[in-house]
Amino acid sequence: MKDTRATTFQRFEQTTRPDQGPGRLAALRTELSREALDGVIVPRADMYQGEYVAPRDERLAWLTGFTGSAGLCVALQDRAGLFVDGRYRVQARDQADPVFTPVDWPEIQPWAWLAEALPEGGRIGVDPWLTSVDTLSRLENGAPGITFVQVDNLVDRIWDDQPDPPLGPVTVQPEDLAGRSHDEKIAALAADIAPASAAVLTLPDSIAWLLNVRGSDIPRNPVPHATAILHASGRVTLFIAAEKLDGIGDHLGSRVDVAPPDSFEAALAALDGPVRIDPASCPVAVARILREAGVATEHATDPCLRPKATKTEAEISGARAAHARDAVAVTRFLAWLDAQAPGTLTEIDVVSRLEAERRATGELLDISFETIAGTGPHGAIVHYRVTEATNATVEAGHLLLVDSGGQYRDGTTDITRTVAIGEVAEDERADFTRVLRGMIAMSRLRWPEGLAGRDLDAVARLPLWEAGRDYAHGTGHGVGAYLSVHEGPQRLARSGTVPLEPGMILSNEPGFYREGAYGIRIENLVVVQEAPELPGATIPSMLTFETLTYVPIDRRLIVPEMLSPAERDWLDAYHATCHARLSPHLDAAAREWLDAACAPL
Amino acid sequence: MKDTRATTFQRFEQTTRPDQGPGRLAALRTELSREALDGVIVPRADMYQGEYVAPRDERLAWLTGFTGSAGLCVALQDRAGLFVDGRYRVQARDQADPVFTPVDWPEIQPWAWLAEALPEGGRIGVDPWLTSVDTLSRLENGAPGITFVQVDNLVDRIWDDQPDPPLGPVTVQPEDLAGRSHDEKIAALAADIAPASAAVLTLPDSIAWLLNVRGSDIPRNPVPHATAILHASGRVTLFIAAEKLDGIGDHLGSRVDVAPPDSFEAALAALDGPVRIDPASCPVAVARILREAGVATEHATDPCLRPKATKTEAEISGARAAHARDAVAVTRFLAWLDAQAPGTLTEIDVVSRLEAERRATGELLDISFETIAGTGPHGAIVHYRVTEATNATVEAGHLLLVDSGGQYRDGTTDITRTVAIGEVAEDERADFTRVLRGMIAMSRLRWPEGLAGRDLDAVARLPLWEAGRDYAHGTGHGVGAYLSVHEGPQRLARSGTVPLEPGMILSNEPGFYREGAYGIRIENLVVVQEAPELPGATIPSMLTFETLTYVPIDRRLIVPEMLSPAERDWLDAYHATCHARLSPHLDAAAREWLDAACAPL
Repeated sequence: MKDTRATTFQRFEQTTRPDQGPGRLAALRTELSREALDGVIVPRADMYQGEYVAPRDERLAWLTGFTGSAGLCVALQDRAGLFVDGRYRVQARDQADPVFTPVDWPEIQPWAWLAEALPEGGRIGVDPWLTSVDTLSRLENGAPGITFVQVDNLVDRIWDDQPDPPLGPVTVQPEDLAGRSHDEKIAALAADIAPASAAVLTLPDSIAWLLNVRGSDIPRNPVPHATAILHASGRVTLFIAAEKLDGIGDHLGSRVDVAPPDSFEAALAALDGPVRIDPASCPVAVARILREAGVATEHATDPCLRPKATKTEAEISGARAAHARDAVAVTRFLAWLDAQAPGTLTEIDVVSRLEAERRATGELLDISFETIAGTGPHGAIVHYRVTEATNATVEAGHLLLVDSGGQYRDGTTDITRTVAIGEVAEDERADFTRVLRGMIAMSRLRWPEGLAGRDLDAVARLPLWEAGRDYAHGTGHGVGAYLSVHEGPQRLARSGTVPLEPGMILSNEPGFYREGAYGIRIENLVVVQEAPELPGATIPSMLTFETLTYVPIDRRLIVPEMLSPAERDWLDAYHATCHARLSPHLDAAAREWLDAACAPL
Repeated sequence: MKDTRATTFQRFEQTTRPDQGPGRLAALRTELSREALDGVIVPRADMYQGEYVAPRDERLAWLTGFTGSAGLCVALQDRAGLFVDGRYRVQARDQADPVFTPVDWPEIQPWAWLAEALPEGGRIGVDPWLTSVDTLSRLENGAPGITFVQVDNLVDRIWDDQPDPPLGPVTVQPEDLAGRSHDEKIAALAADIAPASAAVLTLPDSIAWLLNVRGSDIPRNPVPHATAILHASGRVTLFIAAEKLDGIGDHLGSRVDVAPPDSFEAALAALDGPVRIDPASCPVAVARILREAGVATEHATDPCLRPKATKTEAEISGARAAHARDAVAVTRFLAWLDAQAPGTLTEIDVVSRLEAERRATGELLDISFETIAGTGPHGAIVHYRVTEATNATVEAGHLLLVDSGGQYRDGTTDITRTVAIGEVAEDERADFTRVLRGMIAMSRLRWPEGLAGRDLDAVARLPLWEAGRDYAHGTGHGVGAYLSVHEGPQRLARSGTVPLEPGMILSNEPGFYREGAYGIRIENLVVVQEAPELPGATIPSMLTFETLTYVPIDRRLIVPEMLSPAERDWLDAYHATCHARLSPHLDAAAREWLDAACAPL
């Protein structure tokens, strides 16, 4: 570990240049004229609607220079709106030429902007493969005076050196980690979709989960680019480039038929209805092909979502193992960090060292997302990503917020620790303690079966509300089993409306951010479990969280008098468990650090 | 106050007899045959969809004997289902002949029951005036094989001595209590309903609120039976029996046209669309009349709901005054109760004495609902209502739960106190303390603007969840300003989805019930207020509750060690305020009781 800057997964340079935007926008406008369109929507999303896309699908970045993970451009002849959310406003202004006008999204929605910008009767192009059924109907309802015309992708026409589609190899997710054979999953889901004759699957993590495979077509999310049709007969047709399957032998077995991607459309048209599609993720093109072929459809949630979210015992065991391994790496990183003098490290050093520690486990397959390492004021940028241009020095008096995770064959991790660099102001320690109290309250919670994340989200916020504070993000998101680090439908947030069920893995990550000054977030992953019955209980079934993440929480940032006895007990017990689990895996120096970090409050 | 049994508002006898049911059901079935129907739905609701109905509208009770405040009967030729919710299952079995089969509602919905009971093609009668648009569409969607036929009320045809519609006088709600003139309200709402040309109002409390009047057609809710059309022009047509208006002179003024109730249908048919109706409360008959007349409709919430829920400063001042007055009555009652030896009082004695104390204020216009006074095991029946048949003696060792309220010109009250009769077991004190902690947590809460009751409901449950306990009702309901004690849309419950706003009055009433043993509930009314800003706050606008109810909470039932310092401080401060407010209004004996009841913990 000599050169801590030698990262495998993360890059810190700018990959786009603002000055390329105007020429590309002009070329796009020529295409608009050719198609007699008034404008076109260029989304960040690819046809799989995920958070990460392949280089070929970086159309928004190629056109505008903006590389954030969400957003869209609406390009008209006389103006072009670049829609980005609160996380990305500064970045969008830096990365995109002023020919693109930043629009505050989702406060201003594209349909509202369009209804203002265009006369009645305007025609706007949309790529039916990149647009979900729900998105199109929101556009059509929101801007009834505008016609949305389905056209082949206009950016692809003008992007000369557009990369090819990825051909990342597929691997087998072993049954002892998945906990169920894919034949069994297919049979169960096939029975489940009745009376539909088939369900169209366009979410890569659904397909990966269903077939017990993983892919390598995009960074961070180990999923293959593929689509599939689940037939009620108990068979699956998988549409995927054959070369991706070279390494998996006959794993797919007799229930799965493999077909080339370009046969997907004909296969859809040949189905007998009714066919289930999920309007939240299904491309408009799929719905149109079915409609034009006279195939009846019914709208329902992707049938893989719920079973994928409720992990098997094997997946939960895997998660425990992955978290134990990851915790050693993070703890070694924290011990190292503490040994460096304030003012000697940059954020990139931090990111690089942490990745190196994870790679040193020998098991790291990828990181699960770009590490967020924000020191001082950068900590207040919730999704900060360091580049060469922003790279700040970690100074005495700073809070350093590090949010990161690893992809291991047995599980996906996601952890945030906020640590003190030198002496930290009393106010910041008080805020840290408030965030910690919320995180502990959620960790200790037991609740009656049937409640959704929305019903519980407030629990982590109460100590902050009491002080006039809050955080502008959910308390937690679902996490996959060696799959996407952001997985639905489970969510600890106001948008979480499905009941939490045993086996669901979520993050528990309250925070507090003072703009221009500091950011605090403390995050563990947790898994929903049945709670042991208590004496005198009157509710038959209650649920609780088992914590998966065991890495010390910075005691120097805690104001002990602000904790209740129960909160102190929880923290001391948590640290005792951390110590017992981590200590055997550390060298003497790190063990000494651990002894202090895990001492009772 | 010699005869504590001389109540004005409450009766304790059974008003129906089970043995009348079979003959009436047989007569109803003759009508079914005459109409070529397979069955008919007899709801508890009248055309105004409220909780209380006039004697004329007690069709469900007349037919079945069941007198609860919610439910319905689905009468077929070969069976009759009596649908009642968890509160009323025991009562329904007592009151209804076995010819009516009790059905667990809402676990089993009428449409599901019908789909089981009838062959495809069945025909079921519904009275279009008693059935809301939403209810009919739930029936039609839930039982697609059944035809729901709109017929005149079949019970009315066979009910020989059915009472006449009520003609209760209307009174003026003075502007100094309402805080806004009705002309102002009409003008504001008329502007609000655009682009609709009119809105149909069928909720009596909406009409009472809008026109600054109160009525006396039904018990407990001071509203008139009436309907109205609010025109976008800024006028209101009020359909009401003219004799009810005798006492209010020219209060209604020039914006309001009074018309006889039987002209309502013709007036609907003469409207130009689009006309707003609220599908949750609008009778199917209204929607049908509009449709048949070619009048376009749009579905939207009754425009009075939100402004009625957000009380004016005058209404909040009125509520404070009403609660102060009511608190003296309740405190005098509690002091009296404590002076009686265990085993010497019955539940009816308790109800009667409490009503007498409220009447003694000289300001009581009605009680706001039938008092719930449940001692020992009866306390566990959430909506227990004592009758001569159930009347239990208040014994040593009991918890006595008393939930009651008054209607005063300046406000509607609702308060629950649970008190110890003699020595109470330690377990029950621990449960009382858990309920109290939840109630205190809600009382102390501050939260960011924009949240709904669903987002906050858990706050009051955490101390119970921690011990494996919960309560099967919402934490709180909306309350009107000298209107209905149950008022929407504000609600502290999982069903509360509208954001809480300043001026909304709600109850805060967590509880705990051990079936067959005891019940605990502690209830104050609260009003939403803007919270004062705190140092270092980062959220611009936070809300909090101002407590309206100041009556001592039984200290003998509190386990002090279970309270946090903040909770003890809240309770001591609450009791200090109670003492300061109540003491000047009590005689020496009651003041002595108060001194002890309000002493610091």
